[in-house]
Amino acid sequence: MKALLFDKSISIAEIPKPARKSGEALIKVLLAGICNTDLEITRGYMGYKGVIGHEFVGVVEDSENHSLINKRVVGEINFGCGRCEYCLSGLERHCPNRTVLGIQDRQGAFAQYVSIPDKNIYHIPDNVPDNQAVFVEPLAAAVEILEQVKIEPTSLVAIVGDGKLALLILQVIQLTGNRCFLFGKHKEKLEIASQLGGKALAAEKGSSKKFDFVIEASGKKEGFDFALDIIKPRGTIILKSTYQDKTNMNFAKIVIDEINITGSRCGPFAPALSLLEKKRVQVEPLISKIFPFRAFVYAQKNSLKVLIDFK
Amino acid sequence: MKALLFDKSISIAEIPKPARKSGEALIKVLLAGICNTDLEITRGYMGYKGVIGHEFVGVVEDSENHSLINKRVVGEINFGCGRCEYCLSGLERHCPNRTVLGIQDRQGAFAQYVSIPDKNIYHIPDNVPDNQAVFVEPLAAAVEILEQVKIEPTSLVAIVGDGKLALLILQVIQLTGNRCFLFGKHKEKLEIASQLGGKALAAEKGSSKKFDFVIEASGKKEGFDFALDIIKPRGTIILKSTYQDKTNMNFAKIVIDEINITGSRCGPFAPALSLLEKKRVQVEPLISKIFPFRAFVYAQKNSLKVLIDFK
Repeated sequence: MKALLFDKSISIAEIPKPARKSGEALIKVLLAGICNTDLEITRGYMGYKGVIGHEFVGVVEDSENHSLINKRVVGEINFGCGRCEYCLSGLERHCPNRTVLGIQDRQGAFAQYVSIPDKNIYHIPDNVPDNQAVFVEPLAAAVEILEQVKIEPTSLVAIVGDGKLALLILQVIQLTGNRCFLFGKHKEKLEIASQLGGKALAAEKGSSKKFDFVIEASGKKEGFDFALDIIKPRGTIILKSTYQDKTNMNFAKIVIDEINITGSRCGPFAPALSLLEKKRVQVEPLISKIFPFRAFVYAQKNSLKVLIDFK
Repeated sequence: MKALLFDKSISIAEIPKPARKSGEALIKVLLAGICNTDLEITRGYMGYKGVIGHEFVGVVEDSENHSLINKRVVGEINFGCGRCEYCLSGLERHCPNRTVLGIQDRQGAFAQYVSIPDKNIYHIPDNVPDNQAVFVEPLAAAVEILEQVKIEPTSLVAIVGDGKLALLILQVIQLTGNRCFLFGKHKEKLEIASQLGGKALAAEKGSSKKFDFVIEASGKKEGFDFALDIIKPRGTIILKSTYQDKTNMNFAKIVIDEINITGSRCGPFAPALSLLEKKRVQVEPLISKIFPFRAFVYAQKNSLKVLIDFK
């Protein structure tokens, strides 16, 4: 099968179709999405080598669980040991022995086939087409914020960044009744944010408005500096994006203003699927392009979501 | 009067006794404590120039409020505008227009006299001697942690650092029934921690134990790195000390493990005074030395609390 491999550089390679292990399902990939984490991996993030990619939708070709076969599915990307305190409390995504699809010790989904445990699989409702279903993973990451902090309808909330994750977060936060601010640098993306109901503004230093919550989704050091600039004393900054570089920061501001910083990663699939099924979020405005397999090299920094078509 | 001035370097100077403003009390300083923040100020922290010092106990010499005169008192060190949302909610210590005693735009307490607003003054109960009362400010800073996060009796808690603030925090946390760990580098201070009921251990890289809460009170970059090393996924690191240097850090660990970081500064005086009155914490083991006025130059890094006697 064809797969997108990373090992110092990116290449499209012909590799063997994965052998399905017991308890796993072999999935034919239909459509995949490129995440900033994939781009960071190609810059050395996580030290990962192998098939990259973790946002996908596919059809089950083989499984011991016959009810799965021929079903259209998405897959939770964290594979826990099933025995530790995290796995036993439903937080497999924090299992210390986990592997992560296309990110950590586990061949990813930018390939014609991928094999993942049956227990990680979620059926896609019939009214959710492939190009929406492929957003379940990043949408779950946006939902994760509401699992972690208590954002009230009247909280002053700002999102820093105008990329695809930021635009998903904007929609999820607004489901609480909150009409939040989004600070970005790209006119066309700010317009989408505005159409999605957000108060979209250009990110400029010295904003006088201060916020209870600032969600850093730009994945850039300057984004974090801007977040520190607009957070209220005792406010909470949510770090929503990962990047390879180190950040040189002064703790004094965090201590003096008693700021909370909360890291936020993967989220729960079931509520994300439910939001898509009920048409509570719009993902199609976030699709920049749908490419055939050679797409990855094309995923420029200033595009929104790039999907890869495997059909 | 004599005062300890900082302006590029430390000097003992003869300066005019402060003129008491309306609504303020003129206090004759009896005893003062040297805090790490004072030492950081002499390294450029906060860009402060003037009389340093903020931990003190004194006797009111003059005030429009006659009930205060001749009373033994301590003073809350943050002076808010009294009109903003923070001041109106009782959080003057976060007033954006505040001044801070000996730290920010306000002459400090390492002097024979200090003038502070009546409303910042707390009477000292008779059973609390001067050398205990002078700990109210740092003890309040320890109490602040319980204002910010919910530490349960069975939470796994570690304190990083074995200095005076760490040893106060150790005692406050243990009041919840929690018997917490304290990681330090100084044998004699670890012995004090142990006598105070803590599980005192040498801070060594690669501790296999992981904690729900880690309180960083070492004021050092390595202390923060150690905290990151021993925090559980989804755990909370409380930053309890300020320092001048910047910290070069990788956000990936914070995002991947969804760690919370909470800055923590000054705390409420009333509960701290109450703990001293009820003998719930021991502060005398934390006094390294009591010096006359020239003490400041003597406050070495490896001592515990150094007090300055003004009598």
